[in-house]
Amino acid sequence: MIAKEKIEKYKDWIFRMSAYNMALSVIGIDKLTVAPAGGNAYRDERSAFLAGELFTISTDPQMAEILKEMKDDTDIDPDDRRAAQLYYKEMTNRMCIPKDEFVAYNQLQNRSYDAWLEAKTKNDYSIFAPYLQQIIEGAKKIYGYRNSSEDLYDLMLDDFEPGMTREKYDVFFDAVRNQIIPLIRKVTEAEQIDDSFLYQDFPVDRQKQFTDELLPFLHFDKDWGYQNETEHPFTGWICENDVRTTTKYLKNNVMSAIFSTVHEVGHATYEHDIDDRYDGMILSEGVSSGMHESQSRLFENYLGRTDAFWEVNYPVLRSYFPEQFEGITKEAFMKAVNVSRPSLVRTEADELTYPVHILIRYELEKALFSGELPTEGLDKVWDDMYEKYLGVRAEKASRGILQDVHWANGNFGYFPTYALGSAFSAQFMHKMREDIDVDRALSEGHMEICIEWLKENIHKYGCRYDADEIMRMATGEPFNVQYYVDYLTDKYSKLYGLE
Amino acid sequence: MIAKEKIEKYKDWIFRMSAYNMALSVIGIDKLTVAPAGGNAYRDERSAFLAGELFTISTDPQMAEILKEMKDDTDIDPDDRRAAQLYYKEMTNRMCIPKDEFVAYNQLQNRSYDAWLEAKTKNDYSIFAPYLQQIIEGAKKIYGYRNSSEDLYDLMLDDFEPGMTREKYDVFFDAVRNQIIPLIRKVTEAEQIDDSFLYQDFPVDRQKQFTDELLPFLHFDKDWGYQNETEHPFTGWICENDVRTTTKYLKNNVMSAIFSTVHEVGHATYEHDIDDRYDGMILSEGVSSGMHESQSRLFENYLGRTDAFWEVNYPVLRSYFPEQFEGITKEAFMKAVNVSRPSLVRTEADELTYPVHILIRYELEKALFSGELPTEGLDKVWDDMYEKYLGVRAEKASRGILQDVHWANGNFGYFPTYALGSAFSAQFMHKMREDIDVDRALSEGHMEICIEWLKENIHKYGCRYDADEIMRMATGEPFNVQYYVDYLTDKYSKLYGLE
Repeated sequence: MIAKEKIEKYKDWIFRMSAYNMALSVIGIDKLTVAPAGGNAYRDERSAFLAGELFTISTDPQMAEILKEMKDDTDIDPDDRRAAQLYYKEMTNRMCIPKDEFVAYNQLQNRSYDAWLEAKTKNDYSIFAPYLQQIIEGAKKIYGYRNSSEDLYDLMLDDFEPGMTREKYDVFFDAVRNQIIPLIRKVTEAEQIDDSFLYQDFPVDRQKQFTDELLPFLHFDKDWGYQNETEHPFTGWICENDVRTTTKYLKNNVMSAIFSTVHEVGHATYEHDIDDRYDGMILSEGVSSGMHESQSRLFENYLGRTDAFWEVNYPVLRSYFPEQFEGITKEAFMKAVNVSRPSLVRTEADELTYPVHILIRYELEKALFSGELPTEGLDKVWDDMYEKYLGVRAEKASRGILQDVHWANGNFGYFPTYALGSAFSAQFMHKMREDIDVDRALSEGHMEICIEWLKENIHKYGCRYDADEIMRMATGEPFNVQYYVDYLTDKYSKLYGLE
Repeated sequence: MIAKEKIEKYKDWIFRMSAYNMALSVIGIDKLTVAPAGGNAYRDERSAFLAGELFTISTDPQMAEILKEMKDDTDIDPDDRRAAQLYYKEMTNRMCIPKDEFVAYNQLQNRSYDAWLEAKTKNDYSIFAPYLQQIIEGAKKIYGYRNSSEDLYDLMLDDFEPGMTREKYDVFFDAVRNQIIPLIRKVTEAEQIDDSFLYQDFPVDRQKQFTDELLPFLHFDKDWGYQNETEHPFTGWICENDVRTTTKYLKNNVMSAIFSTVHEVGHATYEHDIDDRYDGMILSEGVSSGMHESQSRLFENYLGRTDAFWEVNYPVLRSYFPEQFEGITKEAFMKAVNVSRPSLVRTEADELTYPVHILIRYELEKALFSGELPTEGLDKVWDDMYEKYLGVRAEKASRGILQDVHWANGNFGYFPTYALGSAFSAQFMHKMREDIDVDRALSEGHMEICIEWLKENIHKYGCRYDADEIMRMATGEPFNVQYYVDYLTDKYSKLYGLE
């Protein structure tokens, strides 16, 4: 068994990393929410330095030796062994990168984010294009240091969703292409649902007041969570009892901020419910991006768009906007919030067309990394693909290629997990409905019953088990895309009266 | 002349410290504004660690040698020499403290702040009292390491206002006691001004909208500044182009948030206007607490409470609250916002009684550090002194001894600078009025003319010169308390029709 002093060294090492991670998280959330843009350059330069310090600690060769010993030591605490395995994998992926390169890439990410924000504000992709090119080259260089025989884009996919590759995603996206796109066509040709009343003038102040009432229903507690506003909603976490979400209010779209809130609270609840003895260490994070997204999508769509969810909440919403919802029955409201209609903006897309937004990004990422596509003119390619798959074309880049922050931050291989997560949700939900009366819980204002199921079956584990193991433990079988296809087919066939 | 490589080492040292300082500032501002309280313990433990890292860097013995050489080297850049002198003083004050003690004191400060917040919320001084005792003992221990022949409280006074001692402050506060308290008595006995209309129901949403309009008038620009809300308003700064202010809205007191905004923007403008070549180094800070407070008080009282300031702003304020200000002339409004009336809460005190609030804190601090007073029962001593000097008594501790955060953070010797700052303002203002037409600038909506005078005569220097030198350069003479006494006597005699 490993020497006690090495375990102590390991604990101290984790603590030191958690301090830098905490600082970088707070600085990052601050930048995305309230920090004046004038200070970006100053702060960015310094946070890159701190990220470099963290990098030095996280790639300490002495710790690599200790982790190597711990990861196969069956006599130590199994939590520590699992953590050591994950740390060791992360460390070997990092240690191959020269520190200078790591710091330079971090600085590039910051500059690229700033350029993206400017480009989006000015609706001018050409401001961002050279940075996108640089960040793709930067990512290739960074991943290249791993010296793996695997394809670079496969490595990126695996980073966000361990075990996933282009080969496996191709199978998944074939199901989207072959089973979901035909369903979208049928829905598009069916009689359309009127949801125009959701796009009237909804004063933002009142929207905020409604959100303040919705957060307690979602069990998002001010003592451990804080919701702010930002251009692109996200969730950031520090520890069990400190999770931050953001949303964005749109004056002429009342449901946008509501569903983005429910979505982000899904992420936040996952992080909050992870066993607190993992706080500050690698096990305290969601196990994969797909698993994380499965929780936010489950909140947003599989719970948040049900009749039962709105049993309590629709009367409240109506009380804030009596004129806008005059004469709108609960049934008409439920149809409207479940409308499927090809659209431009991923974060506002409906459940059914959503995976097609991801399919487009996945195909573009594959082509960008295989070198088939240059970044110059990519805005046109983007628009052409939207026209081909969804029959819509962006009138401006901020609703086209510049809509998402991910590429600006160098997060390639991330998008596919969003669609995968939605598919995970379908399978979890199928099992949850077998175990508990979900509709009764929601309609009686007891969402905590659903949250408890998620906590016990998924959340509490953090990274203690692989996504695949958690799926098997929670549902009794491996991931199966058919739950997703069946769910969408059943829901939208009923909604649109398809045969 | 010092070797070039030593200068490079010095520059790198400054950069590294600026990174930790930036991180700790952002984490501190985040904690005071939006962070969920549930995460305090986790974050506090880690920010104490980072403060310890900064401590290690800032007390690097190798750098002490370099600074010692630089501070007397007349061949180097004078900015660098001045900075080296200040760094060296700071460093020798720090190096005497064992790192463990420094980290422990930082942790104590965090715990003490949390206890103060809880005590204030629950109106229970007994929750805070043991922490106050601990933090006084902690401060004594920390200052004791300097091994100075000077009194510990004198050392604290000097830290916030270099050159000031109990002896000098006693002279200053004698002027408050002998010339201002008698004036307060006369005002209290004179015919009172009606300001009841300022304490009606003023919806907070509308107050916020007015503040949003006031910020551009004050030239507080969103590109370099951000205003948030917090229990106790403060200003925090990161660099030239990143300054954060906070305010607190009170439903039944419309002027509270307005004047706290003007006050904090005074601090913020000072920091923003410091020469940007000092960014990240010791010269980039306000030269002393008194000088800082002179700028916020100058904004708040010497500009913000003038007829000219409200020439443009009163009609706007009135448009937000037409019912509340119905029939209230500008003249009646101006009298009301300048009312003097003995009160309980320092931050809401009027200009005339303000220095008496400080006198009380100064006398208590002297007694606490001389050991004449225990912390137990200090709430009663506090209340008794308010009754003696101002004839008012707190009905609850949150408006008595628990109103201020300073002691909770271990900032002893800070309060006296507030009164001194107000007195500095009087002297600066006297000169500014000789140089430019202040009333015309304000009444025409050109406050930037006043700000420019402040920038050129005070702000831009940062710590480049001592407060005393800046006072002499700006006004042509050393600090003279008589400007303050004369200003208050003149203003309040006219306002209350005293002979």
